[in-house]
Amino acid sequence: MELLKERIRQDGLVIDEHVLKVDQFLNHQMDIALINEIGKEFRRIFKDHDITKIITIEASGIGIACIAAQYFNNVPVIFAKKSKSINIEGDVYWVDVKSYTHKQEYNVILSKKFLNENDTVLLIDDFLANGCALSGLIEIVREAKAKLVGAGIVIEKTFQEGGKTIRNMDVRVESLVKVKSLKGNVVEFDD
Amino acid sequence: MELLKERIRQDGLVIDEHVLKVDQFLNHQMDIALINEIGKEFRRIFKDHDITKIITIEASGIGIACIAAQYFNNVPVIFAKKSKSINIEGDVYWVDVKSYTHKQEYNVILSKKFLNENDTVLLIDDFLANGCALSGLIEIVREAKAKLVGAGIVIEKTFQEGGKTIRNMDVRVESLVKVKSLKGNVVEFDD
Repeated sequence: MELLKERIRQDGLVIDEHVLKVDQFLNHQMDIALINEIGKEFRRIFKDHDITKIITIEASGIGIACIAAQYFNNVPVIFAKKSKSINIEGDVYWVDVKSYTHKQEYNVILSKKFLNENDTVLLIDDFLANGCALSGLIEIVREAKAKLVGAGIVIEKTFQEGGKTIRNMDVRVESLVKVKSLKGNVVEFDD
Repeated sequence: MELLKERIRQDGLVIDEHVLKVDQFLNHQMDIALINEIGKEFRRIFKDHDITKIITIEASGIGIACIAAQYFNNVPVIFAKKSKSINIEGDVYWVDVKSYTHKQEYNVILSKKFLNENDTVLLIDDFLANGCALSGLIEIVREAKAKLVGAGIVIEKTFQEGGKTIRNMDVRVESLVKVKSLKGNVVEFDD
């Protein structure tokens, strides 16, 4: 997605070889017009599926998923919650996830009443790096016996393992831009 | 907002005298068509102001703020971050907030580069109860010397102190529905 590459070149900040900061337009301040274009692009890619639910995880995926849902006939968005507490309340799907980025463990939680075998699900998230959160969401969708259409990712860092891990789980991953390197303070794209 | 009252009557769950659960349509599963109507209503209320930024706080305010921003000429949304760590990195506004609901203390953080004295700000959030998070956001807007138009709240619980606290700070608070009691397992509205 050329528009997004341009924006990353213009406003993305390379913090180090691993971290690309896009808080100017994607995950702290959010450019709503750009995110609408992102939503349209996800629709174009996944248009052949009768998606019934879009699922994301708090916090930075929520706005993107909500805007995108407007291009999928306003299907409901469910955002999975992160919790560090061990006590899981109520009738929920939950998985234990280890975050490499923040060196912590947490639970990803989604209420059972909102997802079942009749659902056709699209996952949406801002970043794919190590794939920890995303693989947690996939586990939940599979436990619910819902149909998983794939994952729509805004920025994939292909020099990290997540994309490979998720595709090896036999899940379709569609990333709007792929970043292959951040070395020398330069963002290099995959294609 | 009649549509919202009807939806609360239909799908809201009264957990106890203090807690109204609206996770079926607002803050876990999100009804995108309904949230568009909420966005339009905020626009109607605040139409006389040239708002330049909408500010909310993670996580459940984000989707509402992003959808609403579309009715305010796609102004940028900034979501303040919650952090429990004491180390504040970088050039940020931050305030210390005590949450009564979760009996914890956390910092509300917003990057200085996204807010300054030239901004006219609308705050948006899903609930107003004790007003802790909202008063944190107000402190930040005032520290930035931005102009604060007011706060658009989806559901205010008028039997808790938040509304009074925030209005005493000389801030315009507009709540789409006001819940005055949850006693006897019944949602009673203010008007």
